[in-house]
Amino acid sequence: MANRVILLDVECSMFGMRARLALAEKGIQYERKEENLADKSPLLLEMNPVHKKIPVLIHDGKPICESLVVVQYIDEVWKDKSPAFLPSDPYGRAKARFWADFIDKKVYDAGRRIWSTKGEDRETAKKDMMDALKLVEVELGDDTYFGGDNFGFLDIALITFCSWFHAYEVFGNFSFEDHCPKLIAWAKRCMEKESVSKSLADPNKVCESLLLLGKNYGGVDQ
Amino acid sequence: MANRVILLDVECSMFGMRARLALAEKGIQYERKEENLADKSPLLLEMNPVHKKIPVLIHDGKPICESLVVVQYIDEVWKDKSPAFLPSDPYGRAKARFWADFIDKKVYDAGRRIWSTKGEDRETAKKDMMDALKLVEVELGDDTYFGGDNFGFLDIALITFCSWFHAYEVFGNFSFEDHCPKLIAWAKRCMEKESVSKSLADPNKVCESLLLLGKNYGGVDQ
Repeated sequence: MANRVILLDVECSMFGMRARLALAEKGIQYERKEENLADKSPLLLEMNPVHKKIPVLIHDGKPICESLVVVQYIDEVWKDKSPAFLPSDPYGRAKARFWADFIDKKVYDAGRRIWSTKGEDRETAKKDMMDALKLVEVELGDDTYFGGDNFGFLDIALITFCSWFHAYEVFGNFSFEDHCPKLIAWAKRCMEKESVSKSLADPNKVCESLLLLGKNYGGVDQ
Repeated sequence: MANRVILLDVECSMFGMRARLALAEKGIQYERKEENLADKSPLLLEMNPVHKKIPVLIHDGKPICESLVVVQYIDEVWKDKSPAFLPSDPYGRAKARFWADFIDKKVYDAGRRIWSTKGEDRETAKKDMMDALKLVEVELGDDTYFGGDNFGFLDIALITFCSWFHAYEVFGNFSFEDHCPKLIAWAKRCMEKESVSKSLADPNKVCESLLLLGKNYGGVDQ
């Protein structure tokens, strides 16, 4: 079918949410297929044989994998549909790509360690998370969004982690707002956008899923 | 000074080589500053306070960090200078970005483990390297370059690792050509380009540097 768009997705994945949000921002109609990562579909294994991970955007039968690659693809294929995710100037684009990569390397890793470790390791993870987010907060400065006046690539890359913040707080017994108030204010501004609020998973659902997984790891700090 | 281009670099770094090669391909004049990673310069710490790593491209006083971000920046800023590194079609661009990311995640990591571990861990690393490169070889297919007829983004991302292949072979006592003959043939084609041969570090020098470091880790397989 011409121009058919399918998204292989997992509701609570911050990476899947990025693809959903990018499609929502551009107003693209698509068919969403929820994957069970404990029993991956033949379609997922066929479309992403390398990593076998979601999200996979299937556009006219061709797979695009890795969430940041997917978001850039959506931006480029539907470039005539506003908004543009990446700035037009090369330096702004480089900065957005740099920080999105930073989030994937530092924020994701610290978050994973917050719910999957305990004791000293969890304390280190919490500190790493705060150190990373404080750097991100400096990058935001006094702007409305990371894209300045426009909600853009880096906003998409980071806001989906905010669905996980509640879970990190529950596991680590701390408050993001105490440490990064400007970033939380940014997250609240983003959540006022319908594209964001409709694309992000319910933080309670994320937390419940992690509690099921996390009890086999570090459990919750009291 | 207007349009001044400086590259903070380390001769044997595959990531530094990517920036040198991208600048060479576009024919950009620049000042290269060799960094000592054991005693980083104040300029490096000022220009890349987040990761404190090379390469850093400083263009008109503004820093661009992370090698794949740097290569895309060079492609976009000097878009009027041929060659274009990324294909013009969004799907081709997505594929090039996906595989470049794959190289950074899988090939780099396996290579590091080949020289820094020993015994069972090194055998696993060698297998991971071969598994990764065989997937990359399939992606190349029968094309001249990963960019088809044009030496492009993914060629730049991968060819700089070939300076390290000799060292991996010495540490792991194996031959890339035995396992990935098509990839080695591609590497030889790339090395016929002056931009490539002049930008890549001498494989013997890479190997000597690693032997100095590696003896503190796994040493060389006999």
